[in-house]
Amino acid sequence: MKQYLLSICLLLMAAIAGAQEKNYKVVFDMSSKDTINQQAITREIGLIKGASPEAKLEVVVYGQGLDLVVQGRSSQQASVQQLIADNKASFKVCAMTLKRNNLTKDQLVPGVEIVPDGIYEIISKQREGWGYIKVGH
Amino acid sequence: MKQYLLSICLLLMAAIAGAQEKNYKVVFDMSSKDTINQQAITREIGLIKGASPEAKLEVVVYGQGLDLVVQGRSSQQASVQQLIADNKASFKVCAMTLKRNNLTKDQLVPGVEIVPDGIYEIISKQREGWGYIKVGH
Amino acid sequence: MKQYLLSICLLLMAAIAGAQEKNYKVVFDMSSKDTINQQAITREIGLIKGASPEAKLEVVVYGQGLDLVVQGRSSQQASVQQLIADNKASFKVCAMTLKRNNLTKDQLVPGVEIVPDGIYEIISKQREGWGYIKVGH
Repeated sequence: MKQYLLSICLLLMAAIAGAQEKNYKVVFDMSSKDTINQQAITREIGLIKGASPEAKLEVVVYGQGLDLVVQGRSSQQASVQQLIADNKASFKVCAMTLKRNNLTKDQLVPGVEIVPDGIYEIISKQREGWGYIKVGH
Repeated sequence: MKQYLLSICLLLMAAIAGAQEKNYKVVFDMSSKDTINQQAITREIGLIKGASPEAKLEVVVYGQGLDLVVQGRSSQQASVQQLIADNKASFKVCAMTLKRNNLTKDQLVPGVEIVPDGIYEIISKQREGWGYIKVGH
Repeated sequence: MKQYLLSICLLLMAAIAGAQEKNYKVVFDMSSKDTINQQAITREIGLIKGASPEAKLEVVVYGQGLDLVVQGRSSQQASVQQLIADNKASFKVCAMTLKRNNLTKDQLVPGVEIVPDGIYEIISKQREGWGYIKVGH
């Protein structure tokens, strides 16, 4: 019985410690088509990874933010592709946004992933303890 | 004593499990008068509830966001009223914002609720484990 | 052994209670140069502290938000200086943003603090249980 209690408590401690760990994890909420915001997010990822190579960064693109990850529309197409290729950040686009804009995966910047629901992806990351930053200015 | 410890630990486990449950709960921060944002938030609520009928969604309106819930000013007046009537989302407006704009409850879209402080409403929901999305583009 | 378990559980309870305490703590994410946003954030701080004098408020300035805390560029220079002097809020600016704009501490509104990385400052506060509000409209 004591062993059982101890196990429970140790698991609880691990859970709490996990939630408070000092890792640099951020989910960026990108729903803007503004090119200043497109530049800002790619620059910030480069700066963060330069200082904290172990940081986990994810950009969730939905709504008006779509252009960032569409070939021929993104002002930061080369940067986004390079950041993904270098494992500096993942870029995930909302399937509902894609569908509403009649776009398919082959029109995206290579390496961009698709999630069923961008908002759910964001709040799931928040729930897992990731920081949240709305991209905007 | 063991019973007491076990009870404590089970309560703790329940609390932690509660914080991590997979429910879809989002508080939307609406401080924009932009009609693109007004359309986006009502569309997103419809999409989320279509896919996840049990989702809990709340829109907190303050600052420049006020027009969304004011009769005769909202570009989405019918949508907001219908979303509330169908229990798809609650809309809560900041009393301080109302006062500063010399508006009263009878000028709001029917069903819109008033909270004393919009920002406190938002951070209270965050503290309760709701996801947070700033509406913007 | 029982004492040890009890201590662990009490520590856990305190940690959880701490995360849920009702204190009013907000980190504001300010990356906008828009003067409406500059006015909004200073007004909101005044309103919050008027109603909740014990609230802890921090404004993190980075990216396009820089002007708010630069002498001669801020539309709210006197307000920011007064809010800091009265201990109503702290204003922290990102060192990387300062550097990119070739600005030094003596060009900031008196009392503004410098943090190495604005985004990390924000997510650290989130991790400590502070509410998060993106300033925007």
